[in-house]
Amino acid sequence: MTGWLAIAGLGPGDPRLVTPEVQAALDHATDLVGYAPYVARVPVRAGVARHGSDNRVEVERAGTALALAAEGRRVVVVSSGDPGVFAMASAVFEAVEAGPEAWAALDIRVLPGITAMLAAAARAGAPLGHDFCAINLSDNLKPWSLIETRLRLAVEADFAIALYNPRSRARPQGFARALALLTEACGADRAILFARAVSTPDERIEVVRLGAATPEMADMRTVVILGSSRTRLIARPGGRPFVYTPRSA
Amino acid sequence: MTGWLAIAGLGPGDPRLVTPEVQAALDHATDLVGYAPYVARVPVRAGVARHGSDNRVEVERAGTALALAAEGRRVVVVSSGDPGVFAMASAVFEAVEAGPEAWAALDIRVLPGITAMLAAAARAGAPLGHDFCAINLSDNLKPWSLIETRLRLAVEADFAIALYNPRSRARPQGFARALALLTEACGADRAILFARAVSTPDERIEVVRLGAATPEMADMRTVVILGSSRTRLIARPGGRPFVYTPRSA
Repeated sequence: MTGWLAIAGLGPGDPRLVTPEVQAALDHATDLVGYAPYVARVPVRAGVARHGSDNRVEVERAGTALALAAEGRRVVVVSSGDPGVFAMASAVFEAVEAGPEAWAALDIRVLPGITAMLAAAARAGAPLGHDFCAINLSDNLKPWSLIETRLRLAVEADFAIALYNPRSRARPQGFARALALLTEACGADRAILFARAVSTPDERIEVVRLGAATPEMADMRTVVILGSSRTRLIARPGGRPFVYTPRSA
Repeated sequence: MTGWLAIAGLGPGDPRLVTPEVQAALDHATDLVGYAPYVARVPVRAGVARHGSDNRVEVERAGTALALAAEGRRVVVVSSGDPGVFAMASAVFEAVEAGPEAWAALDIRVLPGITAMLAAAARAGAPLGHDFCAINLSDNLKPWSLIETRLRLAVEADFAIALYNPRSRARPQGFARALALLTEACGADRAILFARAVSTPDERIEVVRLGAATPEMADMRTVVILGSSRTRLIARPGGRPFVYTPRSA
């Protein structure tokens, strides 16, 4: 058996957002590796070994997956969203670079998925309809000062800004500081979208002005999208407004 | 019949990258609206009216689609990639805002897809593995000076940078200027990825250092990804290197 490793994006939650390419990889796998709640999203199939692990052990998890593929197993590393956006693909390549030379010769493929910001944007309208950036607000792996610098430059560039991992129990204060910085830089009228658990039964979408945003509107399952200066709301009778950024922004 | 409008992303080209959600919308549509080459990607089905149009008439096309939905038709506006990223969703909301009040009350849904930069990143490794931005290099709808300002700020923020629409026959010189600016700002060693027609039979992927990049390496069907200062290449025996950005960038 010739082993391979696919790093696959399961999308934001709804099985109808899993691509057929990812489904085919899951159908041919002998081993599933990933953060336990993501492994749990894949229906059980007889003969498939499931290697669920804890959060924050990404490189060890990647090493497990690479070692299995080197033994000839057909391994799928599962990520939420897209594996290349604040997810497992980078951790796998970090492990490849640090590992035995043979790992770089393995059949490793990244299978894209619907990342959270695109699912969130779609639900609300088209807030990422012109130039935008994506910033991970977790300071586990970079200093907070770098995050603040990037936020200021992103506002100066007038990007729409997607914020991943805005808030966790371990760092409740960071998002409050980010909101304060952004409100000072953008003004209270700027549109902001809080999209929690998009496409799951727990989905909650809120579109407000920045002046009405509070830190508690985000948690670990939320992606936040701040509009650019051109982002507009369209009122809808009896519903949430559409939020979109014109193409000429 | 109650009409609806779905703005659907067909992904970069391979049918295995079309989500089941988008496929279901296509299966229930009475009308397909879009740029003719994208409409042509959807297999013909009896009883479905196909409204293919020329490039650069996005708002007129959106108006056609909205009028059909208002008449009670089930309309899918097809986009390449993700409809919310430099594609049709913003044009539809521009038309909603400028159109009759009843259009804002229509059942309008955006169905996300795999956008070009994510498909390109997946093919090459994980160049968007940390903070990044996406910039449309077309100056049809914004001044070139704004593009240059955004490029400079994106480099200062040390984002990986995805460049959409880098080059067209109508504006061959813009991308050459962008490359010169980026080389001056980032140095010749920075990793850069040219990904053309990803997931189609015409796919071509090139990973080089910025000093070796030339304007001719991009055309209308190319997405370009410039690494951040932390982006790394991993040599592979007899193959293209992996390119990835570590999570700590």
